[in-house]
Amino acid sequence: MPHPFFDRHRDTLERAVEAIERRGYWSPFPESPSPKVYGEGAAEQGKATFEALLGKRFALTQPATTGEVGNERSPYGMRLGITYPKADLDRLLAAVEAAQATWRKAGPQAWVGVSLEILSRINKASFELAHAIMHTTGQAFVMAFQAGGPHAQDRGLEAVAYAWDQMRRIPERATWEKPQGRNEPLRMEKHFRIVPRGVALVIGCSTFPTWNGYPGLFASLATGNAVVVKPHPNAILPLAITVRIAREVLAEAGFDPNVVTLVAHDAGDATAQTLALRPEIKIVDFTGSTANGRWLEEHARQALVYTEKAGVNQVIVDSTADFKGMVRNLAISLALYSGQMCTAPQNIYVPMGGIDTDEGHLGFDDVAKGLAEGVDRLLEDPARAVEVLGAVQSDGVLRRLEAARSLGTIALDTRTIVHGQFPEATVRTPLIVKLSKADRATYLNEWFGPITFVIATDSTAESLAIARDAVIGHGALTMAVYSRRDDVIERAIEVAEDVGVALSINLTGGVFVNQSAAFSDFHGTGANPAANAALTDAAYVANRFRVVQHRAHA
Amino acid sequence: MPHPFFDRHRDTLERAVEAIERRGYWSPFPESPSPKVYGEGAAEQGKATFEALLGKRFALTQPATTGEVGNERSPYGMRLGITYPKADLDRLLAAVEAAQATWRKAGPQAWVGVSLEILSRINKASFELAHAIMHTTGQAFVMAFQAGGPHAQDRGLEAVAYAWDQMRRIPERATWEKPQGRNEPLRMEKHFRIVPRGVALVIGCSTFPTWNGYPGLFASLATGNAVVVKPHPNAILPLAITVRIAREVLAEAGFDPNVVTLVAHDAGDATAQTLALRPEIKIVDFTGSTANGRWLEEHARQALVYTEKAGVNQVIVDSTADFKGMVRNLAISLALYSGQMCTAPQNIYVPMGGIDTDEGHLGFDDVAKGLAEGVDRLLEDPARAVEVLGAVQSDGVLRRLEAARSLGTIALDTRTIVHGQFPEATVRTPLIVKLSKADRATYLNEWFGPITFVIATDSTAESLAIARDAVIGHGALTMAVYSRRDDVIERAIEVAEDVGVALSINLTGGVFVNQSAAFSDFHGTGANPAANAALTDAAYVANRFRVVQHRAHA
Repeated sequence: MPHPFFDRHRDTLERAVEAIERRGYWSPFPESPSPKVYGEGAAEQGKATFEALLGKRFALTQPATTGEVGNERSPYGMRLGITYPKADLDRLLAAVEAAQATWRKAGPQAWVGVSLEILSRINKASFELAHAIMHTTGQAFVMAFQAGGPHAQDRGLEAVAYAWDQMRRIPERATWEKPQGRNEPLRMEKHFRIVPRGVALVIGCSTFPTWNGYPGLFASLATGNAVVVKPHPNAILPLAITVRIAREVLAEAGFDPNVVTLVAHDAGDATAQTLALRPEIKIVDFTGSTANGRWLEEHARQALVYTEKAGVNQVIVDSTADFKGMVRNLAISLALYSGQMCTAPQNIYVPMGGIDTDEGHLGFDDVAKGLAEGVDRLLEDPARAVEVLGAVQSDGVLRRLEAARSLGTIALDTRTIVHGQFPEATVRTPLIVKLSKADRATYLNEWFGPITFVIATDSTAESLAIARDAVIGHGALTMAVYSRRDDVIERAIEVAEDVGVALSINLTGGVFVNQSAAFSDFHGTGANPAANAALTDAAYVANRFRVVQHRAHA
Repeated sequence: MPHPFFDRHRDTLERAVEAIERRGYWSPFPESPSPKVYGEGAAEQGKATFEALLGKRFALTQPATTGEVGNERSPYGMRLGITYPKADLDRLLAAVEAAQATWRKAGPQAWVGVSLEILSRINKASFELAHAIMHTTGQAFVMAFQAGGPHAQDRGLEAVAYAWDQMRRIPERATWEKPQGRNEPLRMEKHFRIVPRGVALVIGCSTFPTWNGYPGLFASLATGNAVVVKPHPNAILPLAITVRIAREVLAEAGFDPNVVTLVAHDAGDATAQTLALRPEIKIVDFTGSTANGRWLEEHARQALVYTEKAGVNQVIVDSTADFKGMVRNLAISLALYSGQMCTAPQNIYVPMGGIDTDEGHLGFDDVAKGLAEGVDRLLEDPARAVEVLGAVQSDGVLRRLEAARSLGTIALDTRTIVHGQFPEATVRTPLIVKLSKADRATYLNEWFGPITFVIATDSTAESLAIARDAVIGHGALTMAVYSRRDDVIERAIEVAEDVGVALSINLTGGVFVNQSAAFSDFHGTGANPAANAALTDAAYVANRFRVVQHRAHA
């Protein structure tokens, strides 16, 4: 069935489908917050819209509301003071199932069209969302705008494109005509209907609620499933704004808005677990800790479960033709959002005998010192530093930072920076600690936050072997290698393919190992313990719907 | 990387890929056992090849062989007396993993090319396989040839086509060029490598070892996974022949033949469970009982598990414009291979007030009587009857047949037929028992074999409601409806889509509800308890491989 929203966005969809097959650069949502792109006054208006939300009940009318909930605190200091509907799960899920009953019949063009219209309106709210993301995750404003706005929207659109690309291959009908020799052929008319799994649950994380939340949300919605969004208790607002927009678009398109609902809850309660085990929930998308992800994989047996958990990201330094470039690049990777990215490097392996560089042979300590100086240089100017570091998102990061200082020799100590605009913000610079290869019990665990280990190994071969074990045992979302030797690069590729981790080679310029671009980079592989799925590929969407056929003699 | 076997079968592959998108009739493997198709003497030669296997050690040289195993008995009477290698699992899996290491690097064209060559040689062995299938499953010869030969080969090719269709969408490389305003663009060269999951396990069934086994076998093999084939202890031979051919082709293509291996075992031991839980096994394809399928889904957590279990298939009779045609069609559906098909109807719901037909209004008893007479007529001639019924595959079927006779009023009693050619064969005609709608505890369970219940309901609406509950609670692979009323057909389609079961409407001609044609019909939906996957769709193949990328500045 055609749908006006589908027609409105058909060009974008076609280009997106082309992009996922080419995997070159493409982005329909501009990442520049410039008034030339988003319009004069858009930035100011977005900020004002955000500020008008503070201290109030969030304007979201949902059924089965039994009270209010919400206690978000900005990593920049203030309490948001926003409250959200608290849901009675039994009654809310009944309303969701009722909404699902008509949504499921609307068909792929409506599902995809409505999804694309939602994304397009989310894009227009990018400034409002950027402030919401900044003040829940602690990201600096530009990152909050880019990663949480257009880049997250790209990831959402990518999921819709994959969903459409798979669904469009199922013909609505077919005539089956089997020859019978001299007799009349057997003729059947067959109809193939795409039906969704049911109700999907998206469990949001505290650091990238939209970037990590949109792929699952839109993959499920675009394949006809209703979606219940359960944000992290300290990052509710970005997903609440998302749900508000989704409900507006659904209502405008004549659908029951309960196709997309929000379940906000207080920290420490069991809402995620309770929801994930409900028989109505047929799909779960999760980003968060390894423990919670494994629990879901183990227990939510009635659902398809897609998880992105934690990992220990790996850098192998063998040699380099551009030591300054390497240091500059790695320094940014370590400092960006205070290392609070699931893709940030943690372990940097350097042979204890040192490495060959364009500046001559440098010893292990020289490399560690170079990295320390690179980070220092990057963060010299406090005003610039806070725009790279953002703010520390949780007390856990601070505790780990303190604990990590005594693990080995400190190559670069963490410093506190006073934020000029937000004096209450907790801003900490990266800590770099030197370890020996024997400290496996330390460095094979994840130390989430601005904590980096420079680890002395016997050789690059050993570095690769340790990195290999680390990915197999603990998972990783990224691996990087620096080398001037083709055989080392080849071997690194072999290891990466063997253990299933994305590899970046000799990054010295303006692309960082932490970055994963929609339509081009697969985020996660689903082949190591860090994630059981990739964002986004065919496997991520193809099982969210089923095909039910009926046939009759023609 | 190109591969000569890929080039050899490229045309077939392209037509197969086209076929899975059109879903009209297509079959590359002719189903007619005629000498005009398979060549003069092919039938005789295949029979002789089969007979030469009897009473001997099967010619399969595998590593880690510690002895012999095998105790197959033909449902037509004789013991096959064939023995197969008994494997030491630790050592066999080590050999499989070693083979997998080079196979994984060969790439999609080699995986697909070798798979297609294997299928093409299996096709040439169709007569040998037909006898092997007949004398393990009890199917009559023509069904054994068609369903176990060309139709199974079609299903295997379909899986290869889906695998290729998904893999070919991943570009080997891409240039990513992101504009930077007035500055030079950022340029990255990216490489995308398709890597298999690891080692796959195929657990074969006793009734359709090739038809149900080939989709998983070829879906895994064509995506680069090594495959361990574990046949049912009474249907080893068809899969042993398959494995022998696969190993020949692999060796000829320069690969380690241990990419495909056989693990035969005695009835009653725990080989399936032991294998399924091995950490090396990353994929399991299973066809068999609900209990075993659920056990795998529950316990084989290290693997992707695809199951086809049992179900209770449903027929709703509301009215018909062709009573004779309906009866003729249903009679064949009930009698084919003595109802030992996972798609055979079990429950036929008829309103107790009767139905409108082209022969006037017929009461409930008239309908049951009509069906009984239809089956009787079909099986009147014993020589023809045995070609429809085949032989009873297991003692369980006989026990259930006996037990079912006392469940209600017998509309048609089961008879014993003496097989002219194989006097020791156990041949039984279908039993039809009349039940009331209150007998849910009886008819909602699966009674595998030639056992049919004609169930009196208040109305067609009630028939549909019971069928709905049955599919949700117990699963079904097929549902059929007979009605002259559009609203009933519409409602039946709605129910089928709601509970996720394939529906056949008013079948009165030469197509039967039991039949599922490759490239056109999806077998199973994955949306009800009878199966967690469909044969075959994108979801069935897309997660059997992963993509691992590496990138560097261009």
